[in-house]
Amino acid sequence: MNKEIEWIRSITPTKRHQSSLKVGIGDDAAIYSDDETKETVIAVDTMVEGVHFTKDTMPLKAIGHKALAVNISDLAAMGAVPLYYLVSIAIPKSGWLTEDLNEIYAGMKTLADHWEMDLIGGDTVSIDRNLVITVTALGKVEQGKRLLRSNASPEDVVFVTGPLGHSALGLEHLLKNSHKNIDDPELLPYIKAHQWPVPQVKAGRILAETDFKVALNDISDGLASEAKEIADASNVSVEIVWDNIPKTPFIKKAPIHKQEEWILYGGEDFQLIGTISKVEWPKLKQLFKENALSIHNIGSITSGKGEVKLVRDNETIVLTKTGYHHL
Amino acid sequence: MNKEIEWIRSITPTKRHQSSLKVGIGDDAAIYSDDETKETVIAVDTMVEGVHFTKDTMPLKAIGHKALAVNISDLAAMGAVPLYYLVSIAIPKSGWLTEDLNEIYAGMKTLADHWEMDLIGGDTVSIDRNLVITVTALGKVEQGKRLLRSNASPEDVVFVTGPLGHSALGLEHLLKNSHKNIDDPELLPYIKAHQWPVPQVKAGRILAETDFKVALNDISDGLASEAKEIADASNVSVEIVWDNIPKTPFIKKAPIHKQEEWILYGGEDFQLIGTISKVEWPKLKQLFKENALSIHNIGSITSGKGEVKLVRDNETIVLTKTGYHHL
Repeated sequence: MNKEIEWIRSITPTKRHQSSLKVGIGDDAAIYSDDETKETVIAVDTMVEGVHFTKDTMPLKAIGHKALAVNISDLAAMGAVPLYYLVSIAIPKSGWLTEDLNEIYAGMKTLADHWEMDLIGGDTVSIDRNLVITVTALGKVEQGKRLLRSNASPEDVVFVTGPLGHSALGLEHLLKNSHKNIDDPELLPYIKAHQWPVPQVKAGRILAETDFKVALNDISDGLASEAKEIADASNVSVEIVWDNIPKTPFIKKAPIHKQEEWILYGGEDFQLIGTISKVEWPKLKQLFKENALSIHNIGSITSGKGEVKLVRDNETIVLTKTGYHHL
Repeated sequence: MNKEIEWIRSITPTKRHQSSLKVGIGDDAAIYSDDETKETVIAVDTMVEGVHFTKDTMPLKAIGHKALAVNISDLAAMGAVPLYYLVSIAIPKSGWLTEDLNEIYAGMKTLADHWEMDLIGGDTVSIDRNLVITVTALGKVEQGKRLLRSNASPEDVVFVTGPLGHSALGLEHLLKNSHKNIDDPELLPYIKAHQWPVPQVKAGRILAETDFKVALNDISDGLASEAKEIADASNVSVEIVWDNIPKTPFIKKAPIHKQEEWILYGGEDFQLIGTISKVEWPKLKQLFKENALSIHNIGSITSGKGEVKLVRDNETIVLTKTGYHHL
C-alpha cells in the first residue's frame, strides 16, 4: 500500500506546462479553467497487453509513448491543441516490475513534454494478468474550427499527410521476432512506425487555422476503413488512386497482396486523411510545404452513397473496411 | 467487426441532455463548448473483474452503475455538477455476452440520465480475460468554489454525510454467497450499499454554493484513510469520536473489531467527509436539514501534523490508513 503511494508520488509531475490548470493530481479530481473562445476536445483509448502490444513487440518506453500518441492523434484529427491527459493503469500481480512501469510513464512523459501536456489524474488498480493502460486526452480548438468527418463534398481532393502501411509492415516482423532481435536497417523505419507513431498535431493545427472546409480523420485503422468513415459521414464516395498513395521502394517491391494488406487494411500509421476543395488544394499544399510537412493528393470525392473505390491499372475496385470486390 | 460496430451504435445515445455538447460519439473525439464562469472537473476510475467485482458480487446493471458512480462521487467531492462521461471497456474473449454488456451500459445510463450526463466517447477493445471498465467523468464548478482537501483548520468540525461501513459489511457477505442467494432482509441495505453506491452530488453542491470554507473528500477507501488525506493536505490532525460516527443497530451489535474493520478501513461507502468552522456548522446542519440530507458531526480538527486520532471510552488511539496503535 505505502509502496503504491510512493510510486504514484514518483510519477506525479512536479512542474506544470499549462497555466489554466488549477488542481492537478492529489485531490479527488483535477480542475482547470475554461476559455470561452475555445471548445474542449476529448478522447479515450485503451491498450491491452497481448492484444495491442507485448514485451516482444514494444520497448517499455514505446508502450507509454504509443498509449498517449494514439489519443493525441484523435485530438489532431479534430484540429485541437493537446493540453492534458489522465492515465488509468491495471497492473498484473506478477511480471511487471516498478522499473517497467516507470519506463512506460517515462515514455508518456517525453511525448507529453514535447506537446506541453500536463498529467492531471489517473487511477492505479491491480489485475490478474494483462497490463491495461487507458489514456484520456484533452485539448482545445477555436470555436467553429473543428474538422469533422462529415465535411467532404464531391470534387474535393482526398489527401494523406504521409506514407501508409509502415506500422503494419513493422508489426508483421515484430510478431515473428522480438524487437530486441531486429537490426536489419531496412526494417527499422517500419519497426519505428509501429512502436513510436507520431501524431500529426501540426498538420491538424494548420488545417484548423485555415478557413478551408476540411473533412479529417486519423488513420488508426486501415486507409479503407478511415476513407469509408468519411464517405459515410459526408454521404459521398471516395475514389483513391493506388499509384498516388505514397510508398517507399521497399514496400513497392513487395507482392501486391502484401502492399494492399499493409496500406489498405493495416492501420496504426496515425497519419491524417482529409478532403479539401480542388480550388484550395494548391494553397494547402503550399502551406504544408512552408511548414516542412508532407501532404499527398491520393484521390477525389465523387457523389455517391458511402462507397470507397480504388483505381488501379484502369480497373476500379470497391473496397469494404476489411476487403474488396471487383466492379 | 460489423457486429462490434452495430453494438457500439446500440449503446450510442440518441438524445442529449447538455446543450454545450457539440460533437458526441462518432468522430475522432468529442467536443463541447466552455463557459468561463466555471471550471472543468475531471476524474477517471477503473474497475477490474476479479478485483473490484465478480458476477457473484454484483448484478450486471450494478457493475455499470458503480463504475460511473465512483467517478461522480469524485466530482461531488469537488462540489461539481456532473455533465459528461466516456467509457473504455476491455471485453474478455469469452464469458461475456452482448446482452451482459448491454446490462452494464444500461446500469450506467440510468444513473447518467438521473444526473443528465451525456456519454460522449469511449473505446472498445478485447482482452484475454477479466473485464476492465474505465470511466472518465467531467463536471463543472463555479470559479473559486472548489472544495479541496487542504481547506481544514484547527477547531473545525469534522462531518460525514451518512453512515459508514455498510459497503464493507455487504461485501463480506457477498464474498461468502452469490448475491443471487442473499435474501436476508436485514442484510439487504448493506448489499445495496456495496452494489449501488449513491454519489453525494447534492451535498457537494450545497457545500460549493455556500461561502463557507470547507475541506472535502469522498470516502472511497476507509474513513481512516480519507481523514488522513485531509490531515496531510491541510497539515492538521483529525480527531474522530467513535460514538459520534453514525451506526445502525445491526452494525452496533457486531464485535468491535468487525465494526472497526468495516467503518475505519472498509471504504466504498462514497459518503463525503469534510470540515467546516464551529461557527458555521449549525448553519450547514440547518441547510442540510432543509434539503432533506443527513450530516453528522463526528469530531474536530486539532493543530498537529497529519495524525488521525480516534477517541473511544476515554482512550485516544492513533489511526494509520490500515491499522492503529494505542497512545
